[in-house]
Amino acid sequence: MISEYLDKVRSKKPIVHCITNYVSIKDVANIILASGGKPIMADEPLDVSDITSGCDGLVLNMGMLKEYSKEAMLVAGSKANELGHPVVLDPVGVGASSYRMEFADRLLSSVKVDVIRGNISEIRTLAGLREASGVDALSGISGDDVILVKALAKNLKCVIVVSGEVDLISDGERCCFVQNGRMEMSSITGTGCQLTGLIGAFISANEEDIFMATVSAVCTMGVAGEVGYSHLLEHEGNSSYGSRIIDAVYTMNSSVLEEGARYEIR
Amino acid sequence: MISEYLDKVRSKKPIVHCITNYVSIKDVANIILASGGKPIMADEPLDVSDITSGCDGLVLNMGMLKEYSKEAMLVAGSKANELGHPVVLDPVGVGASSYRMEFADRLLSSVKVDVIRGNISEIRTLAGLREASGVDALSGISGDDVILVKALAKNLKCVIVVSGEVDLISDGERCCFVQNGRMEMSSITGTGCQLTGLIGAFISANEEDIFMATVSAVCTMGVAGEVGYSHLLEHEGNSSYGSRIIDAVYTMNSSVLEEGARYEIR
Amino acid sequence: MISEYLDKVRSKKPIVHCITNYVSIKDVANIILASGGKPIMADEPLDVSDITSGCDGLVLNMGMLKEYSKEAMLVAGSKANELGHPVVLDPVGVGASSYRMEFADRLLSSVKVDVIRGNISEIRTLAGLREASGVDALSGISGDDVILVKALAKNLKCVIVVSGEVDLISDGERCCFVQNGRMEMSSITGTGCQLTGLIGAFISANEEDIFMATVSAVCTMGVAGEVGYSHLLEHEGNSSYGSRIIDAVYTMNSSVLEEGARYEIR
Repeated sequence: MISEYLDKVRSKKPIVHCITNYVSIKDVANIILASGGKPIMADEPLDVSDITSGCDGLVLNMGMLKEYSKEAMLVAGSKANELGHPVVLDPVGVGASSYRMEFADRLLSSVKVDVIRGNISEIRTLAGLREASGVDALSGISGDDVILVKALAKNLKCVIVVSGEVDLISDGERCCFVQNGRMEMSSITGTGCQLTGLIGAFISANEEDIFMATVSAVCTMGVAGEVGYSHLLEHEGNSSYGSRIIDAVYTMNSSVLEEGARYEIR
Repeated sequence: MISEYLDKVRSKKPIVHCITNYVSIKDVANIILASGGKPIMADEPLDVSDITSGCDGLVLNMGMLKEYSKEAMLVAGSKANELGHPVVLDPVGVGASSYRMEFADRLLSSVKVDVIRGNISEIRTLAGLREASGVDALSGISGDDVILVKALAKNLKCVIVVSGEVDLISDGERCCFVQNGRMEMSSITGTGCQLTGLIGAFISANEEDIFMATVSAVCTMGVAGEVGYSHLLEHEGNSSYGSRIIDAVYTMNSSVLEEGARYEIR
Repeated sequence: MISEYLDKVRSKKPIVHCITNYVSIKDVANIILASGGKPIMADEPLDVSDITSGCDGLVLNMGMLKEYSKEAMLVAGSKANELGHPVVLDPVGVGASSYRMEFADRLLSSVKVDVIRGNISEIRTLAGLREASGVDALSGISGDDVILVKALAKNLKCVIVVSGEVDLISDGERCCFVQNGRMEMSSITGTGCQLTGLIGAFISANEEDIFMATVSAVCTMGVAGEVGYSHLLEHEGNSSYGSRIIDAVYTMNSSVLEEGARYEIR
């Protein structure tokens, strides 16, 4: 039952520490609250060790990466690892600058992450950076993306989520394909970041099954995208739609999620 | 008449300088505008002295505190004191890290604040930090919170607001209990920060009576929370609710506020 | 046809790099998406050169200016100039502090901007800073603003937009007066910043005619302000109104824009 993971977020109310960009920071906080979690945003290096110690999980988002947030992610990431808190990484725009690429490389070398969520181009960039010897398919752009994602997940010992028309989730062994959501979600800023935050809440409350918790978070976001769209009035556009998706997570219940979720695990 | 303080915000249109966190910064700006004030957000230490000089009041919010915003708060706070501008402090998460605790201590040592607004755990932390000799009740967690708040207000010569199911406001002599608002407001990120911003607007326009201006701001926020909730559609959740509360401050009028406000001063 | 410039944004989907304040950053991103562009927000000096290289235009917004964002604007501005990307500047609060004034002066000395958008007081401040010899009217507050704006545009070889009850746009030769929008837009935080972002999208897709692209962006924002207002319910205020304006840009079509735009070029 995919909805059991959401139920656990609602009953456990995990506290989720987010070091995230300032475009979608409010929406990330609100979608975590909508799911039943409690967000804390803090990105000062001198502050984050204490903050993350009082939390249940950690969200690292590289959008608007800067000198102090880089340092904060390294400090908080190490602390989370030390305490056994689950960590999710969103490598926003990792292929768009050497600054981001170098940091992703450094972060993945020093912090164990449990989930990485990005679009296919970001994941391909990470695969190139972290290529395992003998996995030649990874470095080529023409490689089969499913093979690439599975290999990267295996290599990094984490769950990888690739957001797209069909979402792909793999832990290196299993692959899950999710067919929820709507194309119009890409015209709202920060829906990817929000999903990353939601995954943070789900894995913080379901540490015993990171893979299925992630699948559940991806389905919840996708179904919320469909439910939110159904409530849009004709004159409403991307701004209202963004708000209605968070609302739909807030009002989501087990039966809507179970009936709406379209996922297949192979 | 509790609504006279709101009327003054609307007629005086005070300019309110806010050094605040980036989660709720837009909503803090919009709720100040909704009340009739004019917000200016600036948090660079080299910028804030000039900025605060052109304003009527100052809001300091410790959520997402960082090295430059700490410095900016100290500079702007001193300038505001020098110019006699009212200052309100929101010690967000003060008990969650030593970084925040040390700064709160330093700030309260060097800047005179007129109002402090927080939840009971934040206020208890401040009371522990700033314990007056001979007020033993302050250091114990088991102490009566009303006594603690009153003593802290007296000690710091300011008005303390404790947000909760019942809000408590004290200036060290009087205590006011406000029974407005709804539980669901806590599932919206930044409603506390918004109230702090609103208090900033109210005290900037009503310097002659900081206590009653604060009571009026707390009632305005609480009544807006009730009015906003009454307009929520069934499929709407925390994101839409947040927007409707600001809308309700915007459309608030004297009769709605007077009829809705449930407060008692002892 | 004023709507052809919007059509081009929708067909070209320009990527717009924004270095902007954190109050309106989400809304700036969403209004660029609503128009058909793709926003990227990045403000770390070490990151922006690569980022702006992958974009089609640059938006610089001085609200919440700080040490790192100043540096980022100089780096990104030079790179955009080198690559021939159009640049729009919003000198938020330039008259409110010497910190902002000195930076505006420095920026305009080293970066060629294509469009500047501000309110009349900001533009007057810039005119004072960048006064051309022999244009005495510029330094006086009592000078005719149209003459001042035209002279400043000529001096800086750029298009100047002055937002107000009537918007004025000049390239130093032509002047365009736009009578769209509503007074209530000024009670929403960040509508000016949003217009600046929208101009960024329009000029990035219409580099061959910066002046008319800017006129079209100003008309689009104004008509969206009118359309959005027409959908407001009685109990809705500034927060909902802000969302409805972005929605109205998203749903804007050629006939609504052509019929609604009220502009005159002299």
